[in-house]
Amino acid sequence: MLLYTAAFAPNPRRVRIFLAEKGVSVPMKDIDLARLEHRKDDFRKLNPMQTIPALVLDDGETLTESVAICRFFERLHPEPPLFGVGAKEEAFVDMWQRRVEFGLLATVGMAFRHSHPKMALMEHRQLPEFAELQRGRALSFLRFLDAKLRSRPFVYGDAFTIADITALVALDLALYARVEIPPELTHLARWREAVSSRPSAKA
Amino acid sequence: MLLYTAAFAPNPRRVRIFLAEKGVSVPMKDIDLARLEHRKDDFRKLNPMQTIPALVLDDGETLTESVAICRFFERLHPEPPLFGVGAKEEAFVDMWQRRVEFGLLATVGMAFRHSHPKMALMEHRQLPEFAELQRGRALSFLRFLDAKLRSRPFVYGDAFTIADITALVALDLALYARVEIPPELTHLARWREAVSSRPSAKA
Repeated sequence: MLLYTAAFAPNPRRVRIFLAEKGVSVPMKDIDLARLEHRKDDFRKLNPMQTIPALVLDDGETLTESVAICRFFERLHPEPPLFGVGAKEEAFVDMWQRRVEFGLLATVGMAFRHSHPKMALMEHRQLPEFAELQRGRALSFLRFLDAKLRSRPFVYGDAFTIADITALVALDLALYARVEIPPELTHLARWREAVSSRPSAKA
Repeated sequence: MLLYTAAFAPNPRRVRIFLAEKGVSVPMKDIDLARLEHRKDDFRKLNPMQTIPALVLDDGETLTESVAICRFFERLHPEPPLFGVGAKEEAFVDMWQRRVEFGLLATVGMAFRHSHPKMALMEHRQLPEFAELQRGRALSFLRFLDAKLRSRPFVYGDAFTIADITALVALDLALYARVEIPPELTHLARWREAVSSRPSAKA
C-alpha cells in the first residue's frame, strides 16, 4: 500500500490522525499542492478527481475519499473502534461525522477556498461574499457543537471517534478561513485542548 | 420507528428509494418544507439541524443524515446489499457514493439553492454567480461519470448500489438547478433510463 498525502491540507490529515489512533503505519508519499502536483498527469492517472488523500492498494487499485479510506482501515484494524460498535452506535457516529463534515469542515473549507490568497490558484474564481456566508454557517454549527459538548467529552459521546477527527481538522483550518471562534464557547475550547493534546494530532 | 420525509426534496428521496430497493416498509410522515415546518419547534426538538430525513427510533432517539439512515437499514436488512460486501468492495462503494455526493449532488444542490426562486425563502442570500460556478463543476463530473459508465452498467460496477441512488436524485434535481445535461453523454442517458425504470425510482 502507498498513501498519497499532502502537508497542511485537512483531508489527508484526517487519514493520518486516524492511522495514528489505530497505531497503524502505512508508507506515505507527499504531493505538493502548491506546485499543483495533484493536477499533473502522473497523479491524475491514479485519481482523476485530483484529490488527496489517495490510497494505492497492493493490487494496484486506488481508493480515494478520506472517510472511505478510514472506513477501510477500520475493517482491517477494528481496534480501537473509531466508527462505533454495533448497528445503532455506528449509525450515530456516522451521523455525527456527517454533521461535522457538512456543518463545519465543508463550511470552513469553502470559506478558505473562496477567500485565502493562496487558494486563488486552485479556484476558478473566488467569491468573497460566498466565503462570508459560509463563515456564518460555520459559527452556527460551532455554537450547536459547544452546547452538545457541555454534557459529554467527545463529539459523539464518551468515546473518541472519527467525528472528533473531522471536527479537529476543521477547527485548525478556521484561522486560515478567518472563522473566528467565539471565546465564550468554553466547552468547545476544553474539547479542542483535549483532542489536540493526543499524540495523533501531530500526525 | 417513524421516518420524517418531504415531497420533492432529494435527500428524503434517497432514503425512500433505498427502503424500496430493500423491500422494507417504515411508517412515514411528511414535513411541508414550503411552509417551513422543518424550522418549527416541534421538528427542531427532533432534529436541531432542521434537515429531512430524520428517523425516530423506537427508543425515542432521532437518527439524521440520509446516508447514516441508509447504512443503519443496511445493517438491519443486509439483503440485497447496497453498500457492497467485504472490506474492499464496501470501501469502493463508499468512495463512489461520496464522489457522487460531493461532485454531483452537492454541486447541483448548491446551484439549485442559489438560483431557484422557491429557494430564496430558505437561503439567507442567494448568489447566482456561485450557482453558475457549481453548474460548471456538476458538468465536469457528469462527463467523468459518463466515461465510467461506458464500460459498466452502474456507478460502482456491476451491481446497483447507494451510489446509483445518490446519482439519480442529483440528476432529477438538475433541471430545477438549470444544469443542462449534454445530449452527447449517451452512457449516462442509458444508465439514467435503466435506474429510472426500477420501481424504487417512484418512491
